[in-house]
Amino acid sequence: MEFSQRTVTCGDLRKADNGKKVVLNGWVHRERNHGAIFFINLRDRYGITQVVVDDDASSELQQTAAQLKMEYCIAVTGTVRLRPEGMINPEMATGEVEVKADSIEILSTCATLPFMIDEDNKTKEDLRLRYRFLDLRCGGIQKRIALRHYFVKAIRDFLSARGFYEIETPTLIRSTPEGARDFLVPSRLYPGKFYALPQSPQLMKQLLMCSGFDKYFQIARCYRDEDARGDRQLEFTQLDLEMSFVKRDDILLLMEQLFGQVFKDVVHYDLPAHFRRIAYKDALNQYGCDKPDLRFDVLMQDFDELAAASSFTVFHEALASGKGAVRALVAPKTEGVEFTRKYIDELEAAAKIYGAKGMAWMKVADGKLSGGVTKYFAGMDEKVISTLGAHDGDLICIIANEKWKKCCVSLGAVRSKLGKDLNLIRPGFEFCWIVDFPLFCYNEEEGHWEAEHHMFSAPQSQFLPTLESDPGSVLGDLYDLVLNGYEVASGSIRIHDVELQKKIFRICNYNDEQAQEKFGFLLDAFKFGPPPHGGIAPGIDRLVMIITGQDSIHEVIAFPKNTVGVDPMDGSPESVDQKQLDELHLAINYPKEDRK
Amino acid sequence: MEFSQRTVTCGDLRKADNGKKVVLNGWVHRERNHGAIFFINLRDRYGITQVVVDDDASSELQQTAAQLKMEYCIAVTGTVRLRPEGMINPEMATGEVEVKADSIEILSTCATLPFMIDEDNKTKEDLRLRYRFLDLRCGGIQKRIALRHYFVKAIRDFLSARGFYEIETPTLIRSTPEGARDFLVPSRLYPGKFYALPQSPQLMKQLLMCSGFDKYFQIARCYRDEDARGDRQLEFTQLDLEMSFVKRDDILLLMEQLFGQVFKDVVHYDLPAHFRRIAYKDALNQYGCDKPDLRFDVLMQDFDELAAASSFTVFHEALASGKGAVRALVAPKTEGVEFTRKYIDELEAAAKIYGAKGMAWMKVADGKLSGGVTKYFAGMDEKVISTLGAHDGDLICIIANEKWKKCCVSLGAVRSKLGKDLNLIRPGFEFCWIVDFPLFCYNEEEGHWEAEHHMFSAPQSQFLPTLESDPGSVLGDLYDLVLNGYEVASGSIRIHDVELQKKIFRICNYNDEQAQEKFGFLLDAFKFGPPPHGGIAPGIDRLVMIITGQDSIHEVIAFPKNTVGVDPMDGSPESVDQKQLDELHLAINYPKEDRK
Repeated sequence: MEFSQRTVTCGDLRKADNGKKVVLNGWVHRERNHGAIFFINLRDRYGITQVVVDDDASSELQQTAAQLKMEYCIAVTGTVRLRPEGMINPEMATGEVEVKADSIEILSTCATLPFMIDEDNKTKEDLRLRYRFLDLRCGGIQKRIALRHYFVKAIRDFLSARGFYEIETPTLIRSTPEGARDFLVPSRLYPGKFYALPQSPQLMKQLLMCSGFDKYFQIARCYRDEDARGDRQLEFTQLDLEMSFVKRDDILLLMEQLFGQVFKDVVHYDLPAHFRRIAYKDALNQYGCDKPDLRFDVLMQDFDELAAASSFTVFHEALASGKGAVRALVAPKTEGVEFTRKYIDELEAAAKIYGAKGMAWMKVADGKLSGGVTKYFAGMDEKVISTLGAHDGDLICIIANEKWKKCCVSLGAVRSKLGKDLNLIRPGFEFCWIVDFPLFCYNEEEGHWEAEHHMFSAPQSQFLPTLESDPGSVLGDLYDLVLNGYEVASGSIRIHDVELQKKIFRICNYNDEQAQEKFGFLLDAFKFGPPPHGGIAPGIDRLVMIITGQDSIHEVIAFPKNTVGVDPMDGSPESVDQKQLDELHLAINYPKEDRK
Repeated sequence: MEFSQRTVTCGDLRKADNGKKVVLNGWVHRERNHGAIFFINLRDRYGITQVVVDDDASSELQQTAAQLKMEYCIAVTGTVRLRPEGMINPEMATGEVEVKADSIEILSTCATLPFMIDEDNKTKEDLRLRYRFLDLRCGGIQKRIALRHYFVKAIRDFLSARGFYEIETPTLIRSTPEGARDFLVPSRLYPGKFYALPQSPQLMKQLLMCSGFDKYFQIARCYRDEDARGDRQLEFTQLDLEMSFVKRDDILLLMEQLFGQVFKDVVHYDLPAHFRRIAYKDALNQYGCDKPDLRFDVLMQDFDELAAASSFTVFHEALASGKGAVRALVAPKTEGVEFTRKYIDELEAAAKIYGAKGMAWMKVADGKLSGGVTKYFAGMDEKVISTLGAHDGDLICIIANEKWKKCCVSLGAVRSKLGKDLNLIRPGFEFCWIVDFPLFCYNEEEGHWEAEHHMFSAPQSQFLPTLESDPGSVLGDLYDLVLNGYEVASGSIRIHDVELQKKIFRICNYNDEQAQEKFGFLLDAFKFGPPPHGGIAPGIDRLVMIITGQDSIHEVIAFPKNTVGVDPMDGSPESVDQKQLDELHLAINYPKEDRK
């Protein structure tokens, strides 16, 4: 295919190029004609340059110009000239010049667009994804994909300079129980057998530590066959990282330095040298969740004592067993927001989603409590107000529950809603570490303990003696990195002792035989001098989403699946030829209602 | 897990560190005791340091030292001291010093090793792969994995500096007919439907060009469900690259600059500024293959005229149809190699693998031909010898076939064998480009034309008029990069014209409906102003294999499958729980002979 190749891009030309002969290649972003004069905004990845077909142009050129429509791909040969005084566009980098066209070649034409190519495409998502190749021409998403490149590149540069090797691990592996469901890949050569796509390179990176690679990372594709849930993708990308001979704080420090550097270089944002560390329990008590948004300062407070001193039996009942809690927060008086009954009902509704039976409240006015449950706090106005640090016009929200965690997360939902509704959220990026997680949680349904994080994480050493007798109280050497209310990384110091590892498997209901069957190669490796090691895995999609100020990871992935796991562009998943199924020795058992 | 953390690595210590208190973490590489003195070579990724437990050590330390076995993982606290004169080891970077141990902690023990941890592990491959976590401790493979990291990093640095974006493309896509078999991934949410793992991001990268990303690359995992064949892996890694508004030579130049830089920086090897370009036809004629090893100079020569002038009817018959060929090469006289009948039979056997019916030969002695088919060249000795440029002691090998290609590749096999047997191969790295490939080849079995490369490659424009009338003679805008006899990259200028693309599909036996069904999203994209574009995809595994002087890509992949697609370490592929199959709506149809 012959065509005139660009000598400059559409973002290159400046005043100093006046008089230069150039060739531009790009897309017709906008075109308009004023009688016999045609103005074409020609766009490529690098910018937009105005092309003019003057009224003295040849009739051939005039005819070509008249044919042009939006998104035609063209080559323009012409001469740079200064725009007339009044025509200078200070908002375009190339706004002082234009190119007078000598000839235009149409490289390809464009059918009627399903939507306009703008900075932001406000079309509904399935149409955007159906025509993703066009959607990706929009300036906003193109910039986000570019930023993602720079972000990941900066991570690689930092870690490589620190002596980490990026090592590729296989993605056709053995199916292992690891939290979510595995995607399976049928083997053609071994009928009835399957590979699985990795939920993460967890076991492989631990093996690399056993191999002595010392510092490993990988920008790794991971797979989880989970039910559609808002923003989840079937495949996602994480920075997978592991180090030998480390303790928790080595990993935390490394991450602080990594993100410090990368945010500085790529986001042009200065992070503090260290991120706050908050114990899991404190995070629940103060923020009502284990991924607190620190960008606003409303803190939940312990209301147990005041609740006990009140005459409200609901509070007393919640505390009776000794496992319950009462927590309160103060919603600050905010201009433009009225704490009406309707609004308070909305707050209560938010709490109920997380299991609260109700939300108690009181207002503060003239240094006194009023409304809501005020009558149960007779004579306690001053004590309540001063303890909580409330002021006139504030709203006190209180949640009581006979389960501590339920109390906390319910009030945490109220806190989150207030943050948004009262415009309390500061701009910027606020990281923190959540540490001292419980190692196990009890699976009520299946009636046994399971790993809160995963089964390879080490307990904190002071809990080793009571590991089996009291799993519920064991804290793990676990850490989550949280940014602006999102969990963006999760990690731990790993177990490297084969007997301890087996003990953990047993607590999680895998007897030695099952453990050997599923994780034999890890247990084998642990017989041959495994080093102490630990790691972490920040999620790339989510980090880039937050950095670019988006609410969905779809906005930072070139070709995402939609919310129900379908790619509206290529139509996947799709039926395949019978021949393909036969080769894989597979038959489909359609569920009855779906049989076709 | 409490332990003493290293203050230095096992590769750090030098003479200047004499007297320093240090902690080392690592593996017992070798240990020996001389009475009450213990010498331990402690190893980590960075080197080996000699640790000494003196005879004045505490009995506790002595006892610990006595327990140590190879590959125990330990922490050593001690003091650096100079080795005595005669004990200096100039082959170790740390060879001038040793660490006198004050205490040793055993971090983990090691069972009986299945093989020694050496520089090279000569154990048979399945045992190495079964214990890959130990095999990877060997120095040789650890260095290769490290080099792979540096190699890929250098590629990323080069391309990023040139304005390329690395963009991740999905690996759960629609199954499309693309050369090899797809791996399928059953969808749980859509019974009877499947995703496929990509054989390459080919269509996605073309869509990214349609989106205006201009310069894209990705270090991409690719998947092919092919039968086990020596060195093939089910998953492999390629540098996937695409550019808009380019012509062939832009891609070739970019690659020359890329590999020039990367070989200089990582391999410390200077490549020429440009690589030789050889037309496909010339490569076949001169080297007998389309991936010539240029490291030795034996060239095949056209023997048609001399064969016609001979009295050998076999040659005449081969040439009779006008489609045959006779090619000759001169095996140079080589010290230590006799051109015996037995050896000549071996050469002939190599040719027969590629379809030759036999190999004719003659020797040159005292300026005359002798032996073999000499009698058919009566009076032609001087002409034959001077035409071929043969010398006394040389062996002339001749192959005739009624098919040109079969003739060439058969003699090419002889050339390859001679290169090895006669030690003709120069050290170093010799790249070349193969260009002007045919666009189509005829599939005799299925009775239609198919793409030699893939269906998205553009024909050279001079063949556009005869595309449909004479597909066999059409040359494509295709290029392969060849290094030391291996194809290391393949690329092309792509079609960006929807009508031309449909024409190619039709020639390859996809009618418009089938093409729309399988490649609809590409054809759709081509309706909306696609740019001219082209790309290439160098294979990372193979390149690193060649650079590190290995014969198998297994040597440069951390966790490869074995030659029959099995991972002897994790046992994949493996059966899965019935519950998993049920969730995927799958049943297994075991082949009769395999039913268990």
